[in-house]
Amino acid sequence: MQNPLNSSRCVIVENGKVIGSGSNRVNETRNATRHAEMEAVDMILAPWTPSECPEAGSIKEQLTKKFGECELYVTCEPCIMCAAALAILGIKKVYYGCGNDRFGGCGSILPLDTDGCGGCGNSSSGEDDGDSAKRRGFECVGGILADEGIALLRGFYEQGNPNAPRPHRPVRAQDSSLAD
Amino acid sequence: MQNPLNSSRCVIVENGKVIGSGSNRVNETRNATRHAEMEAVDMILAPWTPSECPEAGSIKEQLTKKFGECELYVTCEPCIMCAAALAILGIKKVYYGCGNDRFGGCGSILPLDTDGCGGCGNSSSGEDDGDSAKRRGFECVGGILADEGIALLRGFYEQGNPNAPRPHRPVRAQDSSLAD
Repeated sequence: MQNPLNSSRCVIVENGKVIGSGSNRVNETRNATRHAEMEAVDMILAPWTPSECPEAGSIKEQLTKKFGECELYVTCEPCIMCAAALAILGIKKVYYGCGNDRFGGCGSILPLDTDGCGGCGNSSSGEDDGDSAKRRGFECVGGILADEGIALLRGFYEQGNPNAPRPHRPVRAQDSSLAD
Repeated sequence: MQNPLNSSRCVIVENGKVIGSGSNRVNETRNATRHAEMEAVDMILAPWTPSECPEAGSIKEQLTKKFGECELYVTCEPCIMCAAALAILGIKKVYYGCGNDRFGGCGSILPLDTDGCGGCGNSSSGEDDGDSAKRRGFECVGGILADEGIALLRGFYEQGNPNAPRPHRPVRAQDSSLAD
């Protein structure tokens, strides 16, 4: 599970089957918004783009139903951005490992799981579908294998970041047997 | 400025020059996270992907400096997800038109502009660079041409949504002279 380029991992499960997965690709893509959760969500949505799935009409209803049946498992508590995105999409439940008391969006900094993120559970910025007044969050359970999650992240940080302009920690040589 | 598929628009300006732009592509992509701000950010980051820009090292420092000099202009107050993303990226300043009292992340629901989003101003989920303890927000000015922004959104909603499974409003025939 160790990789010099990412740490947090995520899977999305529907009816007991993994239908999406992602890992943190911030360093790899150099895009600070590419967290594991956003990667997994985009994997699920890819087949639903108009080019792949041209018929419209019932798509939104199908996607709302689909995410409403999905559970997400992730190493670390989703940040505020990701928790808001999961509320927007209407995810059913989130399980996470270790909490994040600096930028967690599922209670540590903001409780977007219980409070939702305004009316955006059924809407999006500027795209009001008329029933977005309610605030919708999602079920959330933290502390799943928390010690293992912390150990995983600690291992990542101890490697150092080869892309950092001024590394805070020395970059260690990678043991290829540990890399994905 | 009217288009049957989107409403909110966004530009990102660096030293007086527009370097990124985006429009809400939620309906078009069927991805509820593709707000105008995320589209504009991804347009700016595209040339910095490893395939386009292979050298690493100082990239993160350059991007932090770049977003720290950028101002974003958007029709409607950024939602919580987008405001968190802009805090993560370290945007300098945001100007928006009409406020959004249902899912606004710049004061209406949550004040991510003044409070930041935890320590993620310089970090990302699980990717701690060692100096993420501080909370960083961004300057924000709302109410710019607010009446015009509201009129733009109202015009969008009055068109109806041809992709809605059960449209709340009847879909009007489009006047091609108004479409982009």
